[in-house]
Amino acid sequence: MKFGGTSMAGMERIRNVALRVKHEVGLGNEVAVVVSAMAGETDRLVGFCKEASPLYDEAEYDVVVASGEQVTSGLLAMTLKAIGVDARSWLGWQLPIRTVEAHSKARIDDIETQALLQAMAAGQVAVIPGFQGQMADGRVSTLGRGGSDTSAVAIAAAVKAERCDIYTDVDGVYTTDPRIVSRARKLNKVTYEEMLELASVGSKVLQTRSVALAMKEKVRVQVLSSFEQPGNDPEPGTMIVSEEEIEESDMERQLITGIAHDKNEAKIIVTRVPDKPGAVASIFLPLAEASINVDMIIQNDSKDNAETDVTFTVPRADLARSVDILEARKESIGFRRIITDAEVAKISVVGVGMRSHAGVAALMFKTLADRGINIEAISTSEIKVSVLIDEDETELAVRVLHTAYGLDGDQPAG
Amino acid sequence: MKFGGTSMAGMERIRNVALRVKHEVGLGNEVAVVVSAMAGETDRLVGFCKEASPLYDEAEYDVVVASGEQVTSGLLAMTLKAIGVDARSWLGWQLPIRTVEAHSKARIDDIETQALLQAMAAGQVAVIPGFQGQMADGRVSTLGRGGSDTSAVAIAAAVKAERCDIYTDVDGVYTTDPRIVSRARKLNKVTYEEMLELASVGSKVLQTRSVALAMKEKVRVQVLSSFEQPGNDPEPGTMIVSEEEIEESDMERQLITGIAHDKNEAKIIVTRVPDKPGAVASIFLPLAEASINVDMIIQNDSKDNAETDVTFTVPRADLARSVDILEARKESIGFRRIITDAEVAKISVVGVGMRSHAGVAALMFKTLADRGINIEAISTSEIKVSVLIDEDETELAVRVLHTAYGLDGDQPAG
Repeated sequence: MKFGGTSMAGMERIRNVALRVKHEVGLGNEVAVVVSAMAGETDRLVGFCKEASPLYDEAEYDVVVASGEQVTSGLLAMTLKAIGVDARSWLGWQLPIRTVEAHSKARIDDIETQALLQAMAAGQVAVIPGFQGQMADGRVSTLGRGGSDTSAVAIAAAVKAERCDIYTDVDGVYTTDPRIVSRARKLNKVTYEEMLELASVGSKVLQTRSVALAMKEKVRVQVLSSFEQPGNDPEPGTMIVSEEEIEESDMERQLITGIAHDKNEAKIIVTRVPDKPGAVASIFLPLAEASINVDMIIQNDSKDNAETDVTFTVPRADLARSVDILEARKESIGFRRIITDAEVAKISVVGVGMRSHAGVAALMFKTLADRGINIEAISTSEIKVSVLIDEDETELAVRVLHTAYGLDGDQPAG
Repeated sequence: MKFGGTSMAGMERIRNVALRVKHEVGLGNEVAVVVSAMAGETDRLVGFCKEASPLYDEAEYDVVVASGEQVTSGLLAMTLKAIGVDARSWLGWQLPIRTVEAHSKARIDDIETQALLQAMAAGQVAVIPGFQGQMADGRVSTLGRGGSDTSAVAIAAAVKAERCDIYTDVDGVYTTDPRIVSRARKLNKVTYEEMLELASVGSKVLQTRSVALAMKEKVRVQVLSSFEQPGNDPEPGTMIVSEEEIEESDMERQLITGIAHDKNEAKIIVTRVPDKPGAVASIFLPLAEASINVDMIIQNDSKDNAETDVTFTVPRADLARSVDILEARKESIGFRRIITDAEVAKISVVGVGMRSHAGVAALMFKTLADRGINIEAISTSEIKVSVLIDEDETELAVRVLHTAYGLDGDQPAG
C-alpha cells in the first residue's frame, strides 16, 4: 500500500490511513506500507536547501529532504500500534534500500528483504518511507521528486507482493480526462505499455518511472482513491498489469483504451535545410547533447530536391534553449530560419489491441477533419497514434475522438 | 562547537553559525559541530506524536523527533560547503553514536570515532546532529529533551577535544542571575561541581546531565554567546573546568563563586510523627519508590520525646502526588496532619573554595536575619549552603547575599 502526501497531511489523515491498513490486515494480508512526506513538507525542506545555496551539496540535500518521509513513517507506525496493529518503521538505511548513481536522483539497485519478510511473516506491518535509500558509502540518498511511487513498486517487487496498491487523489485510470469528457469511463485494467503512453502524454496519475519499473518487474499495480471512507472494502480502482493478464481475462476488450492529451510540447520548424546526408543529424545531435528530448519529427517532401523543412517538437520548457542552440549553429547547419509555435497540443489514441495502425489512424484523421481540426504532425508507436494540433482545439478533439472510438460510458463519470 | 535551536532557527542564523565555524577553522582548529533542531521544530514533532496517541510508541517517537536535528545538520554542512569550508554531516547511526537503555531517554554508551577523526584530520568539518544515537538493534534513539548539550560533551570526550564550546543565549555563567542583581559578574572559570550546584538550583545555562558527563570525562566546556557578530574572535565566555585547573591558574579566587535561587521546590511538614526507629523511613520510602526526589530534610527536636515534626522539600510538580502517597499511608506512618507550602524558594551560596561551612553559613544567616528574612530549612553539601525562605523574598535575599559575599562587580552587567 502506498500513500501520497495528501493522505499523510496531518494526524487525522494519517489515522484514516492506519484504519485502511488495519482493514487490509484484517483480510489476512501481509502488508508493507510506503509513505510520502506530509503535503508541502518536501517543498519546505527543498526551500531551505535553495536558501542555503543555489548550488547546494546534493548529498546533504538528501539528508535534509529524506527527513520528511522519516517523520510520516514513524507517525504511521505509532498510529497503527495505537489502534492495535503491530507495526514498525524501516528507514531506507535500515533495510537497506541500496541505491546507485547520483545523490538527489538516485536509482534503486537492490533491496535487502530478509528482516522485512521475517517481520511481515510474524504479522508486523512494515512502514517504509518512500523516496529514500542508501548509497554504497552509507550515506542517505533520495530518488528525485515523486520517487515514492517508484519506492512502492520496487518494494512490492522485492517482497514478491501479490499487488501494489497506490492510493491517489483519483479513483483510477480513465479512458480520458473526465474534466474534458464527462462520459469518460474508469478502466478496470490497463497494460503497463498503455499506462506509460497515457502517463507520458498527460494523464499524470503515476510517475512514468514507477510504471516502467512495474513493467520490468511484473508488479501488478492498482491505482485507487484515498478519499473513500476507510475501514470498508475499498472501491476497486484500475489494475495495471501485463498484456497476457488482460488477454486471458478480458476477451472482449476494446481495441482502443483511451485518449490522452499533452500541452507540454512546442513545435519548431527549421526551414530550407540542405537536403543532403548529415544535414538532419546536424540539427538533432546538438539537441541530444543538451539532453533535450525531441519527440515528433516530420521531414517535409523536398520541393526542388535541394532543400527541405524539418518540423519537430520539444518540451515547452526547453523551447528557448533549443532555439538558442540551433541559431548558434545556423551557418554549419545551413537553414534559412526557425519558426516556433508553443501553442500546440498532442492528442494520442492509445491501445495495445491496436492491430492496424492504418485503420485507427484513418478514423482519427477523418474524425478531426470532419470538425475542421488541422493536423500539424503525426507520429505512431506500437500502441499509439499521436497528432499535433492547435492547443485551442484540444478539448474538442478529445471529445470527438472519445465518441468516435466508442469509449463513451452510459452516464457521466462520478 | 555546539549550537542550540535559537542559533539554528532559519537559514540566516545557520549562515551566521557557518561563519563562526569558518572562523574557528581559520585559526587552524579541527572542528566538530553539534547542532540542535530549529527552535520550535522538536515541539512540533512531539505534538504530532502526542496527537497520534497519548501512549505513543517510544521507538517510533525517536524516529520522528530525531528528524529535526537531521535537517539542521544537513543544512549547516551544505552552508559550510557553500562558503568554501569542507564539511559533511554524520548522523547518529552513521558514526554510530551507540546508546543504551530506553528509547526517548537513551544514554550514550560509546561513540565510534575512527571515520570521524580521519575526516577531521583531513580538514573536513564534521556536523553532527545532537540528541540522537542508535540502539544495539540498529534503531534510532534520542537522549531526551535538551540532550544536545550531552551529545556535544560526549563527542568532545570521544575525540579528545581541547575544549567543547557551547553557544547559548547567555554569554557565560554569572555570580548570580543578572536579572535580579545588575552588578552580577561573569565568571571566567567555574568548576564542574560548582556548575552542577548552580545548574541544579536554577541557573539553567547547561543541562545538568551534560555537566556531570563533562566532569566524569574531564571535558573542558566553554559557555559563550551565540548572539555576537560571527567572523571575529568571540568574546570569551565561562570555562567549566576541573578544580585542579582553577587552583593552578587562579590563586586569588574568591571562596564563594555564586548565589543561586530555585523556585521549583515545595515544602511539606508531616506533624507529630511517632519518634521511634523506622517512622521517618516509612515517610521517605514510598516517595522514593514513586521516584519523587526529596531534597532538604529537617527533623525537629521532639518536644516530649514521643512525637516529632518532619519537614522536607520535593519538586513543586510532585507536591500533589507526594501528599496523596502520604495520606494513603496515614495510619501506618501514624502522623497527625500534613502542612504544605508551595511558595518557597531555595537560596544557595556555592563555592569550591568554601573551607568552613560554619563561617559561610554564619554570614548567610546573619545577612538574611538583618533583613528580617526567615529561614525555614537549611541544608549543606561539600561546596554549598542552602536555605529555604518565603518565595516573595527571593530577589531581596539574592541581592543582599551577593553583596555580603563580595561578589558585586564594579559596574552593572552588560
